[in-house]
Amino acid sequence: MRSVGDHLQACLEIVGPLPPLAVALPDAVGCVLADDVVAPSDLPVTDRAATDGYAVRSSDVTEADVREVSLVVVDDVRAGSAGPVRLPAGAAVLIASGAPLPEESDAVVELAFTDRGRAKVGVRRAVSAGSGVRRRASEASAGEVVLRAGERVGPRELALVAALGRGRIEVHPKPRVVIISVGDELVEPGKPARAGQVFDANSHALASGVADAGAVAIRVGAAPDSYGALRELIEDQLVRADLVITTGGLSLGEGDTVSDVIGPLGNVRFDDVALSPGRRLGVGTLGEEEFPTPVLCLPGDPVAVQVAYEAFVRPALLHMAGHPNLYRPTVRARAGSEWASAVGVREFVPVRLVGSPREGYRWDPVARAGALTGLVRANAYAVIPEGTGTLSAGAEVPCLLLEE
Amino acid sequence: MRSVGDHLQACLEIVGPLPPLAVALPDAVGCVLADDVVAPSDLPVTDRAATDGYAVRSSDVTEADVREVSLVVVDDVRAGSAGPVRLPAGAAVLIASGAPLPEESDAVVELAFTDRGRAKVGVRRAVSAGSGVRRRASEASAGEVVLRAGERVGPRELALVAALGRGRIEVHPKPRVVIISVGDELVEPGKPARAGQVFDANSHALASGVADAGAVAIRVGAAPDSYGALRELIEDQLVRADLVITTGGLSLGEGDTVSDVIGPLGNVRFDDVALSPGRRLGVGTLGEEEFPTPVLCLPGDPVAVQVAYEAFVRPALLHMAGHPNLYRPTVRARAGSEWASAVGVREFVPVRLVGSPREGYRWDPVARAGALTGLVRANAYAVIPEGTGTLSAGAEVPCLLLEE
Repeated sequence: MRSVGDHLQACLEIVGPLPPLAVALPDAVGCVLADDVVAPSDLPVTDRAATDGYAVRSSDVTEADVREVSLVVVDDVRAGSAGPVRLPAGAAVLIASGAPLPEESDAVVELAFTDRGRAKVGVRRAVSAGSGVRRRASEASAGEVVLRAGERVGPRELALVAALGRGRIEVHPKPRVVIISVGDELVEPGKPARAGQVFDANSHALASGVADAGAVAIRVGAAPDSYGALRELIEDQLVRADLVITTGGLSLGEGDTVSDVIGPLGNVRFDDVALSPGRRLGVGTLGEEEFPTPVLCLPGDPVAVQVAYEAFVRPALLHMAGHPNLYRPTVRARAGSEWASAVGVREFVPVRLVGSPREGYRWDPVARAGALTGLVRANAYAVIPEGTGTLSAGAEVPCLLLEE
Repeated sequence: MRSVGDHLQACLEIVGPLPPLAVALPDAVGCVLADDVVAPSDLPVTDRAATDGYAVRSSDVTEADVREVSLVVVDDVRAGSAGPVRLPAGAAVLIASGAPLPEESDAVVELAFTDRGRAKVGVRRAVSAGSGVRRRASEASAGEVVLRAGERVGPRELALVAALGRGRIEVHPKPRVVIISVGDELVEPGKPARAGQVFDANSHALASGVADAGAVAIRVGAAPDSYGALRELIEDQLVRADLVITTGGLSLGEGDTVSDVIGPLGNVRFDDVALSPGRRLGVGTLGEEEFPTPVLCLPGDPVAVQVAYEAFVRPALLHMAGHPNLYRPTVRARAGSEWASAVGVREFVPVRLVGSPREGYRWDPVARAGALTGLVRANAYAVIPEGTGTLSAGAEVPCLLLEE
């Protein structure tokens, strides 16, 4: 049997960060920057009012702390005003937060420290040069690197690149993932099922997992155990896929449809991987050698598919999207009771994890751990190492934290 | 000034979980269940093979641990086979994992403990009744509640509802959020800007934040400081909005466009809220009384908008989507140095947080904390309470953890 580590390595080797693409800002949300972002100009490009108030020459209001100073209001500058406005000595300009500072003014007095006059204004506080002003280039200087390749584009990063006037940025685009579930027995949920048929859970669950990992799911749905139909389907989908995932079709009774069909379509190896639940998995590439499309083949059991998603699919998706960190957070936690683990395989046990960083954590397996009804109760997987045998109560193993 | 707590309360009061909607599974991803999910039938609906192997009568192979037992292979059952197949005494049926168990068989012998024969099979291990079998209703019984209202629909939940054959589930749908930035000075990023103009950062950043919170962003973009145009725009958008968010247009120099326009369109109050950075904010409803659309009005400064997003918008969005927990995780952390806080307001300071649960955490403000270039360096906001004045080095305050 092949080790989990070796199979993960193979999954990561067939994928890599997708080639950089300059995308419009809305399409960059959640992506990873493929290139540094450089400020094309100073931010702000000119001195601006940082507050609503009156632009003044600070030297005109030095006495204002002692007695109110009266200035003539010569203009009214809104944000967006093209200017240039010039401020004479002994005068003030009513100014909106964000508006460009009039020439020869060097400070803005907040409204609260004035009588809010429109023709003349009484100023009750002295201000120093630069007070109430957002200086030119105080946020960024032209040519400065303000974001680094590898950073995720969230709301704050998007605000910054938009404020710099960039309409597009270079990111690793979101991987497009084609999901095919294989099996004559599969029926789309919501449709009537005959005796012996099974509802297709895996393509829906994987589509959700792909979306959770920030990628784009293209759910083809269930394909029959027919060599011709499956081959045609895969060939049709290759053009739009950055990754193909199949589930099922690897079992004896299903005639090994997937390995028989996928083998000739590319370069894919199938192994029994030392993972429980598991365990037959495929990894490789499809299509022509110059334009290979990575493919991951998963088993048909829905619980095994969820474990394979965590162990292999999610890290591969994050790698394709350029994320530096591919793995979920883990904590070490004590087994609540003795646990007889499957020998020679790495076991992912769906568990309830309780505790705190200070007191430590403890896990107990959920009831019906091999069933989906158990799996939805879990908030973590306890990962039992390959050589464990029987794990004593209180022994610590790493637990992989799931989103709830 | 109004307190942050009072304004948050008002924001949560004007929104509530959106009315339940039965949606197709792909549209349920990331939503919160509005109703319990009940198993419509047993899962599985019949006894099934849990492994590839041979279905047998366990009483026929009691001797197999001592000497190989030979059975006639009378059939081959794949997953999806309609059956019913009946197993005679002294015989075996080759069976695929997931296939319905033949009548009168009570166990499945794994391939590994047989000679894999096709006409006759040699069995080398005794099995007890139920071994290698996934029992009818072992995952869920008809009528059993398998998921509760309030749970988030992720990959595992979707696998379960799909496996149960449900094509639609009742969820709180994702809120559709119309985002309008207001100001004559605003220019779409990527377009040329004249002197005095400013690129529209807020509508892009808010759209990203809305998506990060699991809602659907409808970015209208920048509207001019024109009463007629803004009123028409808002009236047009009401029909498709579960929530309207405006930014800007609340400042003196901009003629208070937003409060002047929005006031007559509904029931909206505007306050100076004791929040730094801040601080003029609006909250209320638009449209007819029977069909009110909630509206939140934010300032124009991009850093203030990000703080308002964390303090008010994100909790409101999660509330609309039916999430029980509206707030980001927080940790208490020591100030790395003395901090002079704004008096009488709650201050959100963008910080770098370092440490661990065991040793505790410490924060230091990022450089250029009032600028977007500083904000993108932060991994948390230190939240300085209203009455603080000067915070000593080492004093603990709560820090709200941001995604990186």
